[in-house]
Formats: sequence, C-alpha cells, structure tokens
Amino acid sequence: MSGIVYGVGVGPGDPELITLKAARLIASADLVAYPAPEEGESFARTIAASHLREGQREYAIRMKIADGQFPKDEVYDAAADRLAQAANAGDVVVVLCEGDPFFYGSFMYLYARLAVRAPVVVVPGVSSLMACAVASGGALAAKNDVLTVVPAPLPEEELKRRLAEAESAAIIKLGRHLPKVRKVLGELGLAANTRYVEHATLDSQKVTRLDDFNGATAPYFSMLLVHRRGEAWS
Amino acid sequence: MSGIVYGVGVGPGDPELITLKAARLIASADLVAYPAPEEGESFARTIAASHLREGQREYAIRMKIADGQFPKDEVYDAAADRLAQAANAGDVVVVLCEGDPFFYGSFMYLYARLAVRAPVVVVPGVSSLMACAVASGGALAAKNDVLTVVPAPLPEEELKRRLAEAESAAIIKLGRHLPKVRKVLGELGLAANTRYVEHATLDSQKVTRLDDFNGATAPYFSMLLVHRRGEAWS
Repeated sequence: MSGIVYGVGVGPGDPELITLKAARLIASADLVAYPAPEEGESFARTIAASHLREGQREYAIRMKIADGQFPKDEVYDAAADRLAQAANAGDVVVVLCEGDPFFYGSFMYLYARLAVRAPVVVVPGVSSLMACAVASGGALAAKNDVLTVVPAPLPEEELKRRLAEAESAAIIKLGRHLPKVRKVLGELGLAANTRYVEHATLDSQKVTRLDDFNGATAPYFSMLLVHRRGEAWS
Repeated sequence: MSGIVYGVGVGPGDPELITLKAARLIASADLVAYPAPEEGESFARTIAASHLREGQREYAIRMKIADGQFPKDEVYDAAADRLAQAANAGDVVVVLCEGDPFFYGSFMYLYARLAVRAPVVVVPGVSSLMACAVASGGALAAKNDVLTVVPAPLPEEELKRRLAEAESAAIIKLGRHLPKVRKVLGELGLAANTRYVEHATLDSQKVTRLDDFNGATAPYFSMLLVHRRGEAWS
C-alpha cells in the first residue's frame, strides 16, 4: 500500500488563481500539510481553504519566518519524517505551497528529503513573479530582453553590479533591505523606472512608483519591478 | 453599454493547469480570441477547449510564427481594432494566452493597443518557466541565488557574458539557436549542469541532460535550465 506526496502551488493569493489540478488534488487528500508561522494562520491554507473537506487531517508545519533567515534543518527533517510516514502508510498527502513550489519556495527543502523516501509529484502554480508584473500593469520582459531576479538580501555591491547589467529586473525578499535597494537604484538612475507591488492579487494589493513609496521596510509579499528602458508602463 | 477585454493565461499545456479564474472567465465570454499559426490549431485554444461553450464567437488571431522574428505591427493593429470594437459594443472578450500573458508573451502588444480604448484586465497564469523547473526535478532558484532568464537569440558574446555571471539560468526561445547555446555552455563548463526540457506538462514532455540531447534545433516550447552549483538535481 503506497501513498504519494503532492507539492502543490496554490498561487499568489487570490483563491481563484489556484489551478484546477491543485483544487482536485487538495480535495482528494487524506492529509493536507502547509507552512505556517509559529503562531497564527497559514497563508497557503487560507488561499486553499474552500477546497478542504471535512474529515481530512491537517498538519501545520510551523516555522520561524524571520527576515533574512532560513528555517532550520530540523524543521524540515521533522516535517519530512511525518509526511514520508503518512505516504508510506498509504495516504495521499498534499503539501500546499504559496505561489509556485520551485520558485524560491521552501518546498524544495522538503522535496529533497522526501523524494528518496516516497513518490513525490510537484504541481506548478501561478508565481508571485507573474502576479506582480500583471499588478504593475507592464510586462515582466519582452522580446530578447534579459530578465534578472535578484534577492534583496544580497550585499550592496553585488546588488549594484547585478542591477547595473539588468534590462528587466524583479527584486524579491525586500523586507528590511528596502533602503539599501532604494539607494542602489538611485545611484544607477533606475529609481524612476521602478514599480513597487505589495500583496499582488489580494484585496490589499498596492502598486506605486518606487519614488512614491515612503516605507522604510516592505512586507514579505512585496516586490520591485525595474525596466531599464522605462517603456513597460508607457 | 461597456464591455471588457480579459487577457487570460491558460498555463503551459496541461489543461488542468488552468486557473479557476481563467476557466470562469472563458465560460463567461461572448467572444474568445487566441493566437494561432497561419494554418492549423491554436495551442492556447487546445488548452482551454473544455471551457468553451456553444454559441460563443471565436476569433483566431492568425500570425506567422517564425523563429527569431516578431509578428508585424499590422497583425496586432488589426486584432486590437476588432477586439476594441467588440468590447465597445458591450462584449465580454477573453484573449487566451499560452502560459502567462506578461512573461515574454505576445499579449503585451495587444495590451498596449487595447488599454487606451477599452477596459482591459490581465489574469496571470502558470508560466512555462515554473512548469519547466518542475519537469526538470529541481528548483528554479533557491535562497539568495540570482536567477537570469536569457533569450537564446542574443548574440553569442552577450549570451556568454550573461551566462558567465548566472547562478541559475533559464534559456528560452531555443529553436535554431541551440548549437550556439550549447557551444557557449560548453566553453563556460556549464553543459554538465544543464537540463533540457521540451513540452513541459504535456504527454509529450521530454527531460534530459543537455549532454544527452543530440538535436541541432529545439521546438518553440523548450527550455534549458542551468545551475552553476549543479546541486539542484542532486
């Protein structure tokens, strides 16, 4: 009797941006697992809530989500143990993943541990990258432009070097790094070509020019989009 | 009486990777439009076929799809005229877009023309970028890696410069440029760290190490994924 683990992208936030496949698999699961903060609601579960059924078991994989830190190995070790045991006992296990599981997602750490112990199938989802571009009102990249995805925690000099070369860029994981990124974009003359997007696809979605956003920090679910030619929003 | 145009991502190919929102909007449309080759089926329509209803009007935006060439302005001008007229007459118009509308998609050219003439709403979809990463069995990018998306038609020297800097890269629009890209990756010592993915999420999906793929050209729906550290697939 062999179960299976599905790692399922549930999209960027709007519950309607879940795929038909994700909805079907969630409804079919014996055990639904999802990342969650140490206390409080799981965003992934909130997105998927309408597809959960009575009688399904749930497992909140609680982890400390701190700006610039990655959860400890022990968190993933323990979660992988529990999920592998369930699959090996015959359960259909669905792990809910915000956005897409393999785009800077924490599911990859579970995947590495689980794939050697149980069948694992990954289902792609709508990524925050695409959702933020749509929210900004301009294409992410066009024609033969190079698109660079840059995590904001990188050192200032590396950020500057990467962004100096970029035609189109998405800057992710902003958090407390926003002042550093703002400084770099200013020095490169790119600040006026940058859009700030927060909570894309949710009712709380906010889109402004970077120059019009005065926050010193940004929430986890935010992104900057940069177009060197500045024509994406024209 | 005012209609609206929706640009709707239908995902990478598996009809189940369409979002609930896309499915609902397609079913609600008066007019469904989609890109199509000069002769034959539209891939976007094939993906969405099960959501079309009797009595809906359809409009195939036929264009010459040639390797390395972008369709002529006249194609988009004429399509935008027809779609804007329908919306202005009160129609709900849905334009089907392969993958995501704003990730190197041709919808952006319609968007630029339509947005000044009618209400236009864009709905993000599952991108081939995420689908190919899932198919490859390894994350697109992790932690603070920089991810670079590189169109293969770029000149050899620029390709080399971009890929020499990349930690994780996705090389798109391969087509007849595959030998050039293969040469560059070989010179950079990255060929062994590269996966070739074709027709991700379709029954015809193919995934191999680049070294095991002998084709001189690659279909439009293919991609190379490169990880400098080579650990994504370990």
